[in-house]
Amino acid sequence: MLLLHRAVVSALRQACRSLSSRFRPPPSRLCIQACSTNESFQPQRPSLNFSGDNSSTRGWRIMGALLGFGTALAYHDHRCRASQESPPLYTKEEVYSHRSPETGIWVTLGCEVFDVTEFVELHPGGPSKLMLAAGGPLEPFWALYAIHNQPHVYELLAQYKIGELKPEDSAPPTLETSDPYAHDPMRHPALKVNSQRPFNAEPPPELLTENYITPNPIFFTRNHLPVPNLDPDTYRLHIVGPPGGQSLSLSLCDLYMFPKHEVTVTLQCAGNRRSEMTQVKEVRGLEWRTGAISTARWAGARLCDVLAQAGHQLSEKEAHVCFEGLDSDPTGTAYGASIPLARAMDPEAEVLLAYEMNGQPLPRDHGFPVRVVVPGVVGARHVKWLGRVSVEPEESYSHWQRRDYKGFSPSVDWDTVDFDSAPSIQELPIQSAITEPRDGETIESGEVIVKGYAWSGGGRAVIRVDVSLDGGLTWHAADLDAEKQPPRKAWAWRLWQLQASVPAGQKELNIVCKAVDDSYNVQPDTVAPIWNLRGVLSNAWHRVHVHVTS
Amino acid sequence: MLLLHRAVVSALRQACRSLSSRFRPPPSRLCIQACSTNESFQPQRPSLNFSGDNSSTRGWRIMGALLGFGTALAYHDHRCRASQESPPLYTKEEVYSHRSPETGIWVTLGCEVFDVTEFVELHPGGPSKLMLAAGGPLEPFWALYAIHNQPHVYELLAQYKIGELKPEDSAPPTLETSDPYAHDPMRHPALKVNSQRPFNAEPPPELLTENYITPNPIFFTRNHLPVPNLDPDTYRLHIVGPPGGQSLSLSLCDLYMFPKHEVTVTLQCAGNRRSEMTQVKEVRGLEWRTGAISTARWAGARLCDVLAQAGHQLSEKEAHVCFEGLDSDPTGTAYGASIPLARAMDPEAEVLLAYEMNGQPLPRDHGFPVRVVVPGVVGARHVKWLGRVSVEPEESYSHWQRRDYKGFSPSVDWDTVDFDSAPSIQELPIQSAITEPRDGETIESGEVIVKGYAWSGGGRAVIRVDVSLDGGLTWHAADLDAEKQPPRKAWAWRLWQLQASVPAGQKELNIVCKAVDDSYNVQPDTVAPIWNLRGVLSNAWHRVHVHVTS
Repeated sequence: MLLLHRAVVSALRQACRSLSSRFRPPPSRLCIQACSTNESFQPQRPSLNFSGDNSSTRGWRIMGALLGFGTALAYHDHRCRASQESPPLYTKEEVYSHRSPETGIWVTLGCEVFDVTEFVELHPGGPSKLMLAAGGPLEPFWALYAIHNQPHVYELLAQYKIGELKPEDSAPPTLETSDPYAHDPMRHPALKVNSQRPFNAEPPPELLTENYITPNPIFFTRNHLPVPNLDPDTYRLHIVGPPGGQSLSLSLCDLYMFPKHEVTVTLQCAGNRRSEMTQVKEVRGLEWRTGAISTARWAGARLCDVLAQAGHQLSEKEAHVCFEGLDSDPTGTAYGASIPLARAMDPEAEVLLAYEMNGQPLPRDHGFPVRVVVPGVVGARHVKWLGRVSVEPEESYSHWQRRDYKGFSPSVDWDTVDFDSAPSIQELPIQSAITEPRDGETIESGEVIVKGYAWSGGGRAVIRVDVSLDGGLTWHAADLDAEKQPPRKAWAWRLWQLQASVPAGQKELNIVCKAVDDSYNVQPDTVAPIWNLRGVLSNAWHRVHVHVTS
Repeated sequence: MLLLHRAVVSALRQACRSLSSRFRPPPSRLCIQACSTNESFQPQRPSLNFSGDNSSTRGWRIMGALLGFGTALAYHDHRCRASQESPPLYTKEEVYSHRSPETGIWVTLGCEVFDVTEFVELHPGGPSKLMLAAGGPLEPFWALYAIHNQPHVYELLAQYKIGELKPEDSAPPTLETSDPYAHDPMRHPALKVNSQRPFNAEPPPELLTENYITPNPIFFTRNHLPVPNLDPDTYRLHIVGPPGGQSLSLSLCDLYMFPKHEVTVTLQCAGNRRSEMTQVKEVRGLEWRTGAISTARWAGARLCDVLAQAGHQLSEKEAHVCFEGLDSDPTGTAYGASIPLARAMDPEAEVLLAYEMNGQPLPRDHGFPVRVVVPGVVGARHVKWLGRVSVEPEESYSHWQRRDYKGFSPSVDWDTVDFDSAPSIQELPIQSAITEPRDGETIESGEVIVKGYAWSGGGRAVIRVDVSLDGGLTWHAADLDAEKQPPRKAWAWRLWQLQASVPAGQKELNIVCKAVDDSYNVQPDTVAPIWNLRGVLSNAWHRVHVHVTS
């Protein structure tokens, strides 16, 4: 293992030296782009044994490890060369002694030392995440959360600089952990990758609405952490019993003994279509286009049956079912989320502990061996690689429940945001998007076929999709697919299509779609008034501009 | 009774003669306006005994009877004078022999005869309503549905003219029924009346948000027919039992024996804010402003308890609970509507057979002695003066369930509308409106206080109201009232307020509000793209323009 670490560090130094000589200034930004371009669309081979001797696989692993570190090192070179004055110098030990609000909270990046005491509470990932790095280097954490590799993060950090490490302490940090993503599975090359680490990718629009049921290999993937590599034979799901009751430790076979329930459910990430919000004003988050949504036939045990087996009952008091994944960060903190107990205990809500996706065991990227499926609810609550379920008087204390996945007014920024002031996103609003033609495409004159999807949260059925070819002045009702959905339980999307004549002489079309659900909720006209700092809930009319050949 | 009829007819002739001499042309239109202006804002005295000898009361009754007939007579005078050619002449008997699709369907208005065979299916009120008048005069029915007193209705009818009545048959029809609205209750003078017959009125905005609970006398009133005058001692509610089961005939005392359940619920008419839709393009319906919404504390028996007592159970098959009111038209057809059985049987949905409103017996205008209250659902399903409840495999066949209260694409007009293609409105979408300041008002510079309400259907809580003073460019989050609402059962509105500085030198403000519910549904920016031929579901951003004194 140590050998591999050395190889990684060596390759990393070499790569960044060559990158920083080719691209500068600013090297940090260009380095990110170069690494991403090399990496993003390449499939990764499955790597269940990190000491495997397949050299091409290892090559990718090494490139993978570069992602976070390459940027940091380039930054290190750049900043160290740039500092002309004599800043205060500190030892690693001095930095390490600043790990609490009382002493101040210091961190290092490359040769530089930062006092981030005042920033801890403002950290978008939550104070606890930043505190993991208190007293030491940021690099190992930024390797895990590649979101930090952005110019504005470096600019922000620069404000807190208080000095530099003494020369003997300022060598680039050695890689102290193995690549946490080395065990991630291989992915389908058609997926458009928004982030490799953690892996986040969406199917291209043309494939998205080819099938009512999205094939597993191109189902959109939203991971928050490395994919855990779980052994189905030793897997256990821990269900915490009620006070005075009995907790359960369920094997997969135990879970199979509950009545098997199947349901077709569309999952959508809260960040779907974020890229349109970014065009209004910068937001923090992955640049999802229209593909952070997919539909599968899920099968598993009903959560209400399993909770009842553990002795849980519906309560008059507020209560929440908290889920913990077996994916975790370096401190062992797991991904977590919760849903209200009332939904979990309602058989009509059809919340599943799912072990099958489209007739197959769950793929590793989608939670193997067991994930939660909460029909009608934002993807973030469908916890994957499920390890633990408990019933609590309050929502999950996880970062993703309390400090993320919430909507705010356009007037709220990172200086004024109060995450406690907004409810966690559960049901999602009405949504629709055009998948064909694509924005900027050139189409033949005569006739145009417009295709897309529409979906609403909470089991509300899509009852109509209006399509305009003139930017919203006149409308046509699209044809909806013939899939039947039970009343109040329309958990899956509707695909739609409009075949329309292109008026003679028309040089371009401004195609727009908007959907209506059975509560007659509609999409807002424009995105600016629903802009929010995290770029979630982007559900304005979808607009596509095409050219027409004469 | 006959004497009174004569008095009415005589007064009616005299009034219209004087009106038509003062206002012409076109007399029909002006007559409507004159009558409405005289009548709309005057309270009516209660009139439980039609033979009462209070002469001032009788005066109002007579003026009331004029409303429908005055217009029709003025039209009669005008058209008969205008016809210069010699049209075909028919006898009353010939007209009467045309009452079916086979013979053709004829009607008369004044001296004119119309073949409306082709129009019957297009009748906005449904074919069955028009068929009531087949073979005879329209006047008695137009007296009941004053909506017909509009120029476009006369123009439309004129297209179907085939001739005139022979002179001996063309005298104005005698009033064959007593004024069906004579027993309507007295109303509060603050109410803004949109229609006297049937009575439809809304509280003024300033009063609407003065109280979280709307006082009974100013609660918006939406009647479809005359208010029935029911004796609580003999009142019976008929609950049809399941096949092979037992039907129930419940007195008020029987209903009191069920557990009493109380719930605070906001009711909103589907046509609330229709007047804004009218500004885009003409629609058919009452000109509601922002006041077709109010909130009360309702008490009664839970519908699920009463249905269970009759032996009904939740079924896997589609089923609907159909309600019939004791208000009826001249043929005895009652107001009717239905809701899905699943909602009716769900104790958490809190559907009531209500007999109290804000601690008082229901006022007559609000359904005395018993009405349905369906939290989170459009007002049209809260059937008043409830007479009969049954469980059916399909929705109510009433006009108001199947041929009204549905939403359509802006592209659909009365020639293309297919009422079967859209679901009946049940849950309503997110809504909000500004009640202060009023549009066109002049406010002091310095500070502005903006007030309003926000509500969403289906128990979805309002979580935020954004207010803009610059037409939607920048936003402020308003302060919401502190009323607590249980999760998933937020049946009542939230009142909100924003106190904001008016930028110095500002001459005017374009104030806008928009609300967000806990499914993060939002209101659409503009009204044109949600325009629909009946003018329902008008929930675009609410906009108020005010002037600022310097």
